Amino acid sequence: MTDSLAPRPEHKFSFGLWTVGWQGRDPFGDATRPPLDPVETVNRLAELGAYGVTFHDDDLIPFGSSDTERESHVKRFRQALDTAGLVVPMATTNLFTHPVFKDGAFTANDRDVRRYALRKTIRNIDLAVELGAKVYVAWGGREGAESGAAKDVRVALDRLKEAFDLLGEYVLGQGYDLRFAVEPKPNEPRGDILLPTVGHALAFIEELAHPELVGVNPETGHEQMAGLNFTHGIAQALWHGKLFHIDLNGQSGIKYDQDLRFGAGNLRDAFWVVDLLETGGYTGPRHFDFKPPRTEDMDGVWASAAGNMRTYLLLKERAAAFRADPEVQEALRAARLDDLARPTLADGESLADLLADRAAFEEFDPDAAGRRGMAFERLDQLAMEHLLGAR
Amino acid sequence: MTDSLAPRPEHKFSFGLWTVGWQGRDPFGDATRPPLDPVETVNRLAELGAYGVTFHDDDLIPFGSSDTERESHVKRFRQALDTAGLVVPMATTNLFTHPVFKDGAFTANDRDVRRYALRKTIRNIDLAVELGAKVYVAWGGREGAESGAAKDVRVALDRLKEAFDLLGEYVLGQGYDLRFAVEPKPNEPRGDILLPTVGHALAFIEELAHPELVGVNPETGHEQMAGLNFTHGIAQALWHGKLFHIDLNGQSGIKYDQDLRFGAGNLRDAFWVVDLLETGGYTGPRHFDFKPPRTEDMDGVWASAAGNMRTYLLLKERAAAFRADPEVQEALRAARLDDLARPTLADGESLADLLADRAAFEEFDPDAAGRRGMAFERLDQLAMEHLLGAR
Amino acid sequence: MTDSLAPRPEHKFSFGLWTVGWQGRDPFGDATRPPLDPVETVNRLAELGAYGVTFHDDDLIPFGSSDTERESHVKRFRQALDTAGLVVPMATTNLFTHPVFKDGAFTANDRDVRRYALRKTIRNIDLAVELGAKVYVAWGGREGAESGAAKDVRVALDRLKEAFDLLGEYVLGQGYDLRFAVEPKPNEPRGDILLPTVGHALAFIEELAHPELVGVNPETGHEQMAGLNFTHGIAQALWHGKLFHIDLNGQSGIKYDQDLRFGAGNLRDAFWVVDLLETGGYTGPRHFDFKPPRTEDMDGVWASAAGNMRTYLLLKERAAAFRADPEVQEALRAARLDDLARPTLADGESLADLLADRAAFEEFDPDAAGRRGMAFERLDQLAMEHLLGAR
Amino acid sequence: MTDSLAPRPEHKFSFGLWTVGWQGRDPFGDATRPPLDPVETVNRLAELGAYGVTFHDDDLIPFGSSDTERESHVKRFRQALDTAGLVVPMATTNLFTHPVFKDGAFTANDRDVRRYALRKTIRNIDLAVELGAKVYVAWGGREGAESGAAKDVRVALDRLKEAFDLLGEYVLGQGYDLRFAVEPKPNEPRGDILLPTVGHALAFIEELAHPELVGVNPETGHEQMAGLNFTHGIAQALWHGKLFHIDLNGQSGIKYDQDLRFGAGNLRDAFWVVDLLETGGYTGPRHFDFKPPRTEDMDGVWASAAGNMRTYLLLKERAAAFRADPEVQEALRAARLDDLARPTLADGESLADLLADRAAFEEFDPDAAGRRGMAFERLDQLAMEHLLGAR
Repeated sequence: MTDSLAPRPEHKFSFGLWTVGWQGRDPFGDATRPPLDPVETVNRLAELGAYGVTFHDDDLIPFGSSDTERESHVKRFRQALDTAGLVVPMATTNLFTHPVFKDGAFTANDRDVRRYALRKTIRNIDLAVELGAKVYVAWGGREGAESGAAKDVRVALDRLKEAFDLLGEYVLGQGYDLRFAVEPKPNEPRGDILLPTVGHALAFIEELAHPELVGVNPETGHEQMAGLNFTHGIAQALWHGKLFHIDLNGQSGIKYDQDLRFGAGNLRDAFWVVDLLETGGYTGPRHFDFKPPRTEDMDGVWASAAGNMRTYLLLKERAAAFRADPEVQEALRAARLDDLARPTLADGESLADLLADRAAFEEFDPDAAGRRGMAFERLDQLAMEHLLGAR
Repeated sequence: MTDSLAPRPEHKFSFGLWTVGWQGRDPFGDATRPPLDPVETVNRLAELGAYGVTFHDDDLIPFGSSDTERESHVKRFRQALDTAGLVVPMATTNLFTHPVFKDGAFTANDRDVRRYALRKTIRNIDLAVELGAKVYVAWGGREGAESGAAKDVRVALDRLKEAFDLLGEYVLGQGYDLRFAVEPKPNEPRGDILLPTVGHALAFIEELAHPELVGVNPETGHEQMAGLNFTHGIAQALWHGKLFHIDLNGQSGIKYDQDLRFGAGNLRDAFWVVDLLETGGYTGPRHFDFKPPRTEDMDGVWASAAGNMRTYLLLKERAAAFRADPEVQEALRAARLDDLARPTLADGESLADLLADRAAFEEFDPDAAGRRGMAFERLDQLAMEHLLGAR
Repeated sequence: MTDSLAPRPEHKFSFGLWTVGWQGRDPFGDATRPPLDPVETVNRLAELGAYGVTFHDDDLIPFGSSDTERESHVKRFRQALDTAGLVVPMATTNLFTHPVFKDGAFTANDRDVRRYALRKTIRNIDLAVELGAKVYVAWGGREGAESGAAKDVRVALDRLKEAFDLLGEYVLGQGYDLRFAVEPKPNEPRGDILLPTVGHALAFIEELAHPELVGVNPETGHEQMAGLNFTHGIAQALWHGKLFHIDLNGQSGIKYDQDLRFGAGNLRDAFWVVDLLETGGYTGPRHFDFKPPRTEDMDGVWASAAGNMRTYLLLKERAAAFRADPEVQEALRAARLDDLARPTLADGESLADLLADRAAFEEFDPDAAGRRGMAFERLDQLAMEHLLGAR
Repeated sequence: MTDSLAPRPEHKFSFGLWTVGWQGRDPFGDATRPPLDPVETVNRLAELGAYGVTFHDDDLIPFGSSDTERESHVKRFRQALDTAGLVVPMATTNLFTHPVFKDGAFTANDRDVRRYALRKTIRNIDLAVELGAKVYVAWGGREGAESGAAKDVRVALDRLKEAFDLLGEYVLGQGYDLRFAVEPKPNEPRGDILLPTVGHALAFIEELAHPELVGVNPETGHEQMAGLNFTHGIAQALWHGKLFHIDLNGQSGIKYDQDLRFGAGNLRDAFWVVDLLETGGYTGPRHFDFKPPRTEDMDGVWASAAGNMRTYLLLKERAAAFRADPEVQEALRAARLDDLARPTLADGESLADLLADRAAFEEFDPDAAGRRGMAFERLDQLAMEHLLGAR
């Protein structure tokens, strides 16, 4: 156990109040843990080396609180943050727990529910900004349907655009330094959720009045619930300049949403995720959106929370060693990653030049080219051994 | 068996040469059927009531043909089309069969392969236009990876954009009336394919030099291989104005790519797909990209081909009856689909008005609203019974 | 709407108290419906045409009730059953809701939990028998793990065998006319559940002290959550003589457990399930283990409940028409289903005879045999059209 | 790179001829590699440290060879084995490549195909025994269907039982020291395959005339294609005394059959698999049934082959260190694995005693028991860090 694996604020690890605070209620079982005071969460996370904490409005201020209660909750929380030295890099709205959202929030068939959802969101945006958040996450977990006629998807997307345009207008109008991050998910709790993957969300954003205000918040497990490669997903988000936030956790393949701690589930993908985050220009929080299994008591909860960070730091060391290894660099060249980085047209070459280049087609020998090995297996075995700490 | 189920050219049914022509070679078995002459395909499809036929370059002109052979293949094919009265609404490039494409085409690590792929594509674009195609499909089945370091996804997306920008430049330069349709797929034959879903493709397109030239060609089975709702996917594509073409077939859930005939697999989704295509403004071909199972001889192949069209027409009748049924219309109102169609802000209402509307938040009773039933189950049972021809 | 679609007791439709009584609590949301009095459930189900109702101990007698309360709950329920004319064909134990079962019941690591689970089960077996049940279902939803070292599977199977052997001993000792039905599920609420499929349960049963006492209770959605063909699963259970009960519902592919109403999800498979149940010798209840979506109010709940039965009866009509159609019978012959029914050895033929039969190998022409078409696509299209009520 | 990671014959690593010999033909592409001479395979595997090689009849003796050719192929192979010091621990039949098997082999609807399949199998059993094999694998990849009416599953299981009973009779009659191992797979190349999981195969075996002759050969990827936990599957097979052979490889979740090298895909599960194989009493070969990706040339093939063994040996070291670590042993006790190992009834305790034990039920406090943490997260993090070589 080296010091390099001790989490420190500069690592930018953050956790949602709802993560360590999850009481273990699941579709088949009652809560196994008592409620957790947000103040205690702040203190414990700070002790463990986290730098930030995030929240849904209702995590901090129970649904239905009076204004006085609200103020008191916020005050205690802020004091705890100040004392512990934790920041609030992100906040979000709970638009899914209360029965009023059973058919969605911004795309509920009922217009009054949509209006209420917008107001609930805007109210929490004010608080988020007040507490210093720079990113506001929007997970539309109830925006969807279980049956075909219940939702007209094109009309629902109109409503969703209307909502984000209004939220953008509000933030711009207030002069807030806040950006939105849409969090996609394919299903659960709805049979099918709108904007089911990072791709669908990225496409949707381009239709908004202010696309520059909105990016994505991919979650490991959500993309993996669609069988997709999470590293590829965040790579595409980075390519679009849209990775505004990230939710790290673990998932064992295509099944119910597990929210395991980071590294559990697909460990090899976790390695590539860390490799990409640490080298790909992402500077935001490393946010863990996990649920300590309901088998655990509070000791287990904090052990699980700490495990996320420790595994991240281990993978960071392993990925750095992989990239620094001269044998790996040689293997990357053997796999022609450098050739992929060269534009297909030469510097100054035009389309007409390509069309006139007989070496490109008429004189090209596809059979010979097809016999060249790509040397990917050797490279991947090197990655495996670095991951396993065996080199 | 009514006349209304007889396919006619105005139904715009089309088939790829490679569909009925599939010889049944699979990962574990050899071909079970002889090669099929494209001319026979044209004749049989015309007899069955199709209006169009589509092709990969290598379907029509075997890979490696000389220029003379090429000319002869094209000539025979064109004559057959003229005689049979079939059109070629779409064409595409085979960038996956030959070993040269084993690591991809437009994103192969090897630059000379990328150049060759562009030239092969452009060559077939000329032929596609010559034969009257208005849509050029691009399925990048080999653009992907099985292991983490083998492909730098952001760099690969740069190369993919470079390719589409060059193809767009070519088409514009030639003055062709041709648009591209990207066909997404999550995996197979690569472990993970770039642009894995309709969403990822739609997002990618927005980064191109000429996004207006490029849309999507969603395939039933490909989206369902990611567990996604196909109807939702094409609805979002329509919403973006990007449904340039469609590949209809069947798939039984998340597994290998099955390419069953349309309606096999998820029949209920097929009903909603037809409902949407017939009412959602899509005017392109109903293209079947299926593979008659390798258990079938040629009689079975043609029976299977006919089944696609017959099922489509049956579902079209059922969907129309569903929409016309007054009981359904009442059930749609009970489910408040009309309320979803109303903008969330009233006509002339501003964001400030919404924020000042106490009825929207302060005086809104979420508990009461949460008790309202959505009446979706009754609606869905009506859809079920219309589908089953029981109303 | 013909009379033939009106459910009647002879159809043997049954429902769990927990199905229509589900309040809509899910992993992300609170209850959307009030509790439902079991007496009302009995009355409403009788009105709808059901013949039976089933229960977990805690559905009928809230966990922690005193003996007096227990007696009173049972008495009211029995009176309601008598009045309504409903039977209780099956009962089961809730070994999953209370936190004490968070690591399992019969395979909990904690021995005192295992003992408690046995006692809780035996107590409810007495009640089940008292109320006339002939089948006792055992769903071990919490028997499993999320992580590798937390459960030694072989040791856990020893404990599971110990539990079923004790329960068998009890039932035999009491002289009860009661058989057990194990209900498999691959995952949710545990990451991986023991006995994940019908196959694993069938194999396990053979190791018990009294295998004749134990069969399976396959649930549509559970098998489909593993991507398995439900009809194939119940066919294998029938083949082993082990289909002691069945849970019918709907599921849209590999994802969280949806418990849609029967027919929703994979409608084509539902058709084959009904075809098999109605012709395969199964004489038990048609039990619906579904959850009316939480979007529904109580009207929606009863509409959803009725939909299960109506769809079943519709599919029963369709399947019977399919089997009676002479064109189908001819297509079945063309597909050589009759040849599959002939033993591979002729009557009186020995293994030695087969080995000496040159026609079987030396003179057999595999190429010619490989060219014969199986005519499956025509057959399947006939099934499709019967399902759609189009023949 | 320590000596402990060098494969040696005592590690019992074996490979199929068809693994390194796979030419890279997939559903969308032609072969990328030349055929590989079995003799070269033997020599290279021996150099790499393997102890065994396995084969399908047609891998060694091309389909359709004359008797003379056959003899010559066998002779060369046997000489190579002798020279290289390799053994043949297992063999199997190719009942899937030739078109004659397009509808199955032992369950083909065509009776003459079933007879041919039996003869083809028996012929290769003779060769297998001659070459010293102790296990004969039966993968029924074509036994299945794509559509509902095409296969009567119960009748097909009758035929499958008939086939295995005949094969058992043959082996007993010949006095061969050979056992069968059924290899399950859920789908691909058929839409649904009979005996789709380890569980279904284990259940089926119990119905055979000689169940003691037949066990299972689970393959990593096949179980994972159904989303099942592979370690759990082989644990259940061991519990039944039926793990006669094992196929190790890698798979990235629910999708087409990938046959990646061992450790690729789900690395954490690979760790638990090795942990179980090395401590659970399995003494058979560690057989790699993988396909070097078609991107590789022959150098890549051998690098990939070597990677399987090296990763296995690394995981073996890691698992041994995990089990030996006193902190892990303490964590296992904290998670009460020792309590799971204690029978639920005390030594000498009867069912009546349990029923009379008030501490087990009447005086048991489920709420208090429900509050005990299981300490699984700490244990799993220890496993993670041992896997990563970080302890």
